[in-house]
Amino acid sequence: MTHLPDTLSKAVGAERFATDFLPPDCLWAGAKRAGVAHAGIRTVHTGEARAVPGVLAVLTGADVPGTNRQGIVHKDHPVLAVDAVRHAGDAVALVLAVDRQALAHALERIRVEFDPLPGVFDAEEALAPGAPLVHPGREGGNLLAHALVEKGDAPGAFAQCHAVAEGVFETPMQEHAFLEPPNGAARRTRNGGIEMVVSTQAPFRDRFEIGHALGLDPMKVRVRAPSLGGGFGGKDGATVQCLLALAALHGGGRWVRMCWNREETFLAGYKRHAARIRVRLGASRTGALKALECVMHFDSGPYAHLAVEIMALAMEHAGGPYAVPHTRVEGFCAYTNNPVGGAFRGFGVAQASFALERTLDLLAARLGMDPAALRLRNALRPGELNCAGVAMESPTGAAECLEAVMDHPVWKDREAWKAQAPAFKRRGVGIAASCNAMGYGRGLPDAAAAKLELTRAGTFRIYNSVPDMGQGNSLAFARMAAQALDQPPSAFEVVRPDTRLCLPAGSSSASRTTYVYGNALLKACAAMREKLQARAALFLLADEPHRLVLAPGAVTDPTGGRSVPLALIASMLQRDDRICVDQFVSPVVESPPDTGREFRLGFPHRFYSHAACVCAVEADELTGQVELARCVTAVECGRVFDAQGVERQVQGASAQGVGFALFEDLAVQEGLIRADGLDRYLIPTALDLPDLESLSVEGHEPSGPHGLKGMGEVGVHGPGPAAAQALEDAVGLDARRLPVTPEEVLAAMGGAR
Amino acid sequence: MTHLPDTLSKAVGAERFATDFLPPDCLWAGAKRAGVAHAGIRTVHTGEARAVPGVLAVLTGADVPGTNRQGIVHKDHPVLAVDAVRHAGDAVALVLAVDRQALAHALERIRVEFDPLPGVFDAEEALAPGAPLVHPGREGGNLLAHALVEKGDAPGAFAQCHAVAEGVFETPMQEHAFLEPPNGAARRTRNGGIEMVVSTQAPFRDRFEIGHALGLDPMKVRVRAPSLGGGFGGKDGATVQCLLALAALHGGGRWVRMCWNREETFLAGYKRHAARIRVRLGASRTGALKALECVMHFDSGPYAHLAVEIMALAMEHAGGPYAVPHTRVEGFCAYTNNPVGGAFRGFGVAQASFALERTLDLLAARLGMDPAALRLRNALRPGELNCAGVAMESPTGAAECLEAVMDHPVWKDREAWKAQAPAFKRRGVGIAASCNAMGYGRGLPDAAAAKLELTRAGTFRIYNSVPDMGQGNSLAFARMAAQALDQPPSAFEVVRPDTRLCLPAGSSSASRTTYVYGNALLKACAAMREKLQARAALFLLADEPHRLVLAPGAVTDPTGGRSVPLALIASMLQRDDRICVDQFVSPVVESPPDTGREFRLGFPHRFYSHAACVCAVEADELTGQVELARCVTAVECGRVFDAQGVERQVQGASAQGVGFALFEDLAVQEGLIRADGLDRYLIPTALDLPDLESLSVEGHEPSGPHGLKGMGEVGVHGPGPAAAQALEDAVGLDARRLPVTPEEVLAAMGGAR
Repeated sequence: MTHLPDTLSKAVGAERFATDFLPPDCLWAGAKRAGVAHAGIRTVHTGEARAVPGVLAVLTGADVPGTNRQGIVHKDHPVLAVDAVRHAGDAVALVLAVDRQALAHALERIRVEFDPLPGVFDAEEALAPGAPLVHPGREGGNLLAHALVEKGDAPGAFAQCHAVAEGVFETPMQEHAFLEPPNGAARRTRNGGIEMVVSTQAPFRDRFEIGHALGLDPMKVRVRAPSLGGGFGGKDGATVQCLLALAALHGGGRWVRMCWNREETFLAGYKRHAARIRVRLGASRTGALKALECVMHFDSGPYAHLAVEIMALAMEHAGGPYAVPHTRVEGFCAYTNNPVGGAFRGFGVAQASFALERTLDLLAARLGMDPAALRLRNALRPGELNCAGVAMESPTGAAECLEAVMDHPVWKDREAWKAQAPAFKRRGVGIAASCNAMGYGRGLPDAAAAKLELTRAGTFRIYNSVPDMGQGNSLAFARMAAQALDQPPSAFEVVRPDTRLCLPAGSSSASRTTYVYGNALLKACAAMREKLQARAALFLLADEPHRLVLAPGAVTDPTGGRSVPLALIASMLQRDDRICVDQFVSPVVESPPDTGREFRLGFPHRFYSHAACVCAVEADELTGQVELARCVTAVECGRVFDAQGVERQVQGASAQGVGFALFEDLAVQEGLIRADGLDRYLIPTALDLPDLESLSVEGHEPSGPHGLKGMGEVGVHGPGPAAAQALEDAVGLDARRLPVTPEEVLAAMGGAR
Repeated sequence: MTHLPDTLSKAVGAERFATDFLPPDCLWAGAKRAGVAHAGIRTVHTGEARAVPGVLAVLTGADVPGTNRQGIVHKDHPVLAVDAVRHAGDAVALVLAVDRQALAHALERIRVEFDPLPGVFDAEEALAPGAPLVHPGREGGNLLAHALVEKGDAPGAFAQCHAVAEGVFETPMQEHAFLEPPNGAARRTRNGGIEMVVSTQAPFRDRFEIGHALGLDPMKVRVRAPSLGGGFGGKDGATVQCLLALAALHGGGRWVRMCWNREETFLAGYKRHAARIRVRLGASRTGALKALECVMHFDSGPYAHLAVEIMALAMEHAGGPYAVPHTRVEGFCAYTNNPVGGAFRGFGVAQASFALERTLDLLAARLGMDPAALRLRNALRPGELNCAGVAMESPTGAAECLEAVMDHPVWKDREAWKAQAPAFKRRGVGIAASCNAMGYGRGLPDAAAAKLELTRAGTFRIYNSVPDMGQGNSLAFARMAAQALDQPPSAFEVVRPDTRLCLPAGSSSASRTTYVYGNALLKACAAMREKLQARAALFLLADEPHRLVLAPGAVTDPTGGRSVPLALIASMLQRDDRICVDQFVSPVVESPPDTGREFRLGFPHRFYSHAACVCAVEADELTGQVELARCVTAVECGRVFDAQGVERQVQGASAQGVGFALFEDLAVQEGLIRADGLDRYLIPTALDLPDLESLSVEGHEPSGPHGLKGMGEVGVHGPGPAAAQALEDAVGLDARRLPVTPEEVLAAMGGAR
């Protein structure tokens, strides 16, 4: 599983994704989905399906050998439903067949007798007395979590405020819409375990999910994670894993493949959590933020998955990158019969950012202040406390990012540009700022172990533990190690994550991969450098090895000019001696504030990246269609190690942020997704987007590898509120919910006339 | 090859030495020795030997496939002699037989026709014009090395001296007399290499000796080094290795054993170099040393082996642990037809110490000073330069050791004790000081790599790379690691050196093993600690792994009190992740002085241990027999990590020093050892020795593991000069050569009457 570096391998078509893993003679597995949002299961009729030629097994909940429960933190998600289905995507049966045709026929022939149950499809309604229960008998009913983050005396502080703005904001579910659907292949191994090749963001954790759900020894589950054709959080958690492993247990040692199609992905995959956020924000006469009150409702869908942790991050970011002395943030997370909420780039912060930034716009209007000036005035400075009470380490980058975009012509020259609007078009420009925590936060060690091998040939092999879902970490790791060892990047192979070959690491998520694994890798590189110097010293009779210099393919004595090839050193070393292992565990907030006590995991965070975004929009007076004309994002993420990589992350995040704001609508009704394909669920294409500009605000994070911080997510938050503000600027639309529809734009223009 | 810790395994008879390795059905090999000191080889008649039933091969020099040359630095020592024999121990043929009887018969039946050649048996004579040449045609004739260590202006300084003493001192060859003779077993492996189990001090270097001599790939030579039944330097270099490997090449894959008996060991083994040292030493009226001139002649025997390096160390120690501003030390190393000189505990320093300390006695007499006071007045203090020009790092320990023994009753109350001498006995007490460099010195990286494994069971395995020849390093390593990881020593197994399992390290020599490997091991332990904390953090959900505490068999969270067993952590880790490797390379003198320019390797040194010794002797007026009544040695070797271990080293070294001074005489005549067995070569037994007392002067070497320095050698130097001074005190004997014989003592008493 070693490859060319990321971009080259993709450019030449050499990169192998899980979907490319098609062993000859493999079996196929697939799940029968509920199709109804809430119902008791009376009977699952499998007889007809079993009779289909080529069908090897048809399994139901009763056939799951272990706990039949998945879930990263709370284990409440059955692999196969037993007594009830709680959302339309629940799997009620699993078919194993010799080919895809037999599989499809069998799935069609499974008939489930349901006892329909009333459903609940809104987080606030779910908490109302008498609401249908998603998990009857559960203590707490539909309330999955309730938490409070309180700093100072917000209620009291509002009385001192000159201006107060408030609003209720709604953000919708969002589909990850990755290119490569959830898929994988698995087989039973001779030692009674499972080997799996799967499109996953967390191969090391998958072992435990599979082991727990199916009653297997996790250490006998080998997970190989090729590069992903996108993930964005949607592959952070079990998708095909447990179903596939269950099928493999019946596959007699043959490889079994499972690949969801797009419709099944919409139906059964995780979604960004729908949220409703009530914000009240008060400021002094001069625009100094004084008090924030916030009440959040997160819709978990029927299973916990990461809902509590996502709400925790949203609550931690309720105050955004601003200093607000008094804050009271309350969160409610509820079970519903909607699709299952999960991780999505931004992890709760996207929801909170939209609510806060829109409220800032309202507050700026009340104060008669420029929205940019209001933001800049309150941008968190080093040493100040964020809304969770965490003291910012220097530099925060919040003000710098705002200044960078405010200095850009799109913002500076906005009046001239707006004045040049063509006929039947209205133009507006908006600005927003955001921050996004990096890593797991307190309570959960955010760790990675790196393994670096000097090959017999004198080149290097990096055993990457953190899947590359397109963010390009493989290439970054090769470059980092190359720089650390003074070798050309071509001297490095990167082994894709494989729990048997690579060492444990956390997931590819939380803007953490380059920071955490990169730090571990650099430690391993330092050990490798010392080893190479010490071993070369024996060849060169150099008694001060630290004076020896690494050069491409060799270690050189700068005094004598003699050198010894790495291949020669390697040929003399045992395997154990050609391997350097080291690990890194992220530093955490040392004196955590006395807020968010309900959160055991992931609250609060120590490191944040920052962004500010300016969007220029043009609304069509006749159709209400909104065109994003310009989008400029400035990002502060410590040192920029790979400028191209940073730019690509900003562009991708911006596009997803624009989709969230202006395009994407799953049209969920009574728990059923009506826009369940890419023909109806519209994500912005390249033609829908302007050149997405990216500005870097250079910083330096002392704890970061080469001074960097993670930044895969922070760019997603700006376009939503910035575009909304721009629309207000253009047509007076006071957007309270996303996505903004042409109908709303038309209505706003009508109202403005 | 894992065992109980050193002392326990030896106490219960579980320790397996190379001599215990007796595979069933093994073949036997043995060498035919020259028996004459210098001769041309006309013919080696092997026919009769080949005809002996059970003989598989009889090989001569022509049958050696490689260079047929051994030698650690200079490769001048044939495995099997070709044209000439240069000392009586040269091997002229090698026999491989099915058992020891057949081997003995065949060796008897080899007949060599020699052309006798005149020999040379004294280093100074060897350098005289017209001396017989040991290596005819060699540039430089019999002069193997000539070197100068010059600091200041010694000739000029003598003119300023108030008192000058001088003398010529001779020290003899010394036999190591280890319990376990040179022996081993070897077989050809399927990959065309050699596997060997051998009693050796340098398994990693042996691979290269064998490879070079026999034309084999050194990396295909696997050397396993069980604990040694003594070594003392005599197994630092090839003894059986190349002969055994050569035999194994003809053994068809069967194990071949070779074991020298005591006589062969005397005949063919290395000896402490005989030396003749002329010293001239001048001081001021108050006893401040001013100038030292020294000319040394070292007798290398016919091969270089380590002679140049040993002479270098002698020259570096010519001034002992004293500050002498002006020094001129000249050394000559000559080839002779005597037995081959080699490493022996003290490595040249024993010779230099005797000469210098005796000269100090003469100088004290001239100055009318107490010999102890003279030594203490001139003891090197931190920052002062030794005779090679190396600035001493603090603390030197020289004065402290002298003060410690001077404060001991044996010294303080000596007059009373002497006055109580029984009838026909004369008593005397003497004092001496010494220092001994640790490690290889500049020019040769003094390195070791340590491998530490967390076993699947949650215990630890130390892969020791440095043979334990009785100094107890295995046990020390287990204790060091136990302390570093807060585990009981019983949690540690120590794998004996094996070039396939353990990682490269230098030899077991030069008082370096505990310091160098210990440092590497402690680095590996630090990596293991960090690994265990980081991995335990995942179990304990502890986000600050460095706060976790290692406890016996577990990692514990001191805040919550929860712990995770090491066995559980181990069960989750891949093999690569259960192994920590690290290495250490000894620091060297940073600004080496401009002395000893002829020495490329091993000059000068940065670290020294120190000792002072008081001996009380009782001479019998009737027989001249000398009884050592008391012997007290104070040693400074940094921090004392294992007080018992230090004491045992001091005791063993003292016994060898006493043997050197008073007992041991090989009676070499014309290159032939007359005392070639332990019946005639008398080493002191327990009955010959008093309780050898040891005092510790506690220090702390910042670069040392647990603050220690090596000290296996320093104790050997004191008893010789201290006993000589005591004899002068007792009977007026001015000893200029060792060993002192009863005849000389009797003669001195006659002269004194």
